Amino acid sequence: MHLIIDGYGSNSEIMQDEDFIYQLLDSYPSRIGMAKISAPFVLRYTGSKIEEWGISGFIFIAESHISIHTFAERSYVNIDVFSCRDFDAEQATKYFKDKFQLTRLKNRLITRDWKTTDLAEANEVPQLHLV
Amino acid sequence: MHLIIDGYGSNSEIMQDEDFIYQLLDSYPSRIGMAKISAPFVLRYTGSKIEEWGISGFIFIAESHISIHTFAERSYVNIDVFSCRDFDAEQATKYFKDKFQLTRLKNRLITRDWKTTDLAEANEVPQLHLV
Repeated sequence: MHLIIDGYGSNSEIMQDEDFIYQLLDSYPSRIGMAKISAPFVLRYTGSKIEEWGISGFIFIAESHISIHTFAERSYVNIDVFSCRDFDAEQATKYFKDKFQLTRLKNRLITRDWKTTDLAEANEVPQLHLV
Repeated sequence: MHLIIDGYGSNSEIMQDEDFIYQLLDSYPSRIGMAKISAPFVLRYTGSKIEEWGISGFIFIAESHISIHTFAERSYVNIDVFSCRDFDAEQATKYFKDKFQLTRLKNRLITRDWKTTDLAEANEVPQLHLV
């Protein structure tokens, strides 16, 4: 299961808070029964374009990951919760919506890890599915 | 743009090669004009279930990331190339298909970073879109 969340909030301070995002990544996996296999990696990005500034965070869980990228100038955050085990995607959405005080958001659940036979033979690159 | 690739190959040795995955993550961003903002993080996972064993790798690029998780026992790999800048998703698919010698794969391109006005107001958790 791969849950992707894209959301906007009105509290841009949260989006600039490295410690908050570190703690979130550190504590969240156990809430949904996932096993962390690393510490969180969190860094602040300040490139040439201010609209790209923000915090990026990542943690490995058993053979998958959770990532968070904030864009503070626009109060935009994207979150990926990617696990090879099932979890409650609606509850996860609600959790991150509340934590980042999101006022608008979109959440999608992507199926990964297909059975071999469900996939196209790749003599050529298969046609790209746009989602 | 968020390209997701799920694929199966017949060369499980590649899927167990930490150095190969480190080099891939280290060298790939510059091929598509992305700026690395960290070194690659790569680790080997050997949990209780052998079908979950594999290599997980990750690199931060400017406000986004590339991740790779292999499951060597099943010769399965999933790859995410997530960038706030455009890149050629078909070329990227071909690149990873060749590198991992994938014989079956599925590739999808997910739109992220919506405009605020395109998103539902989140008084409640919006209905989950299954993809």
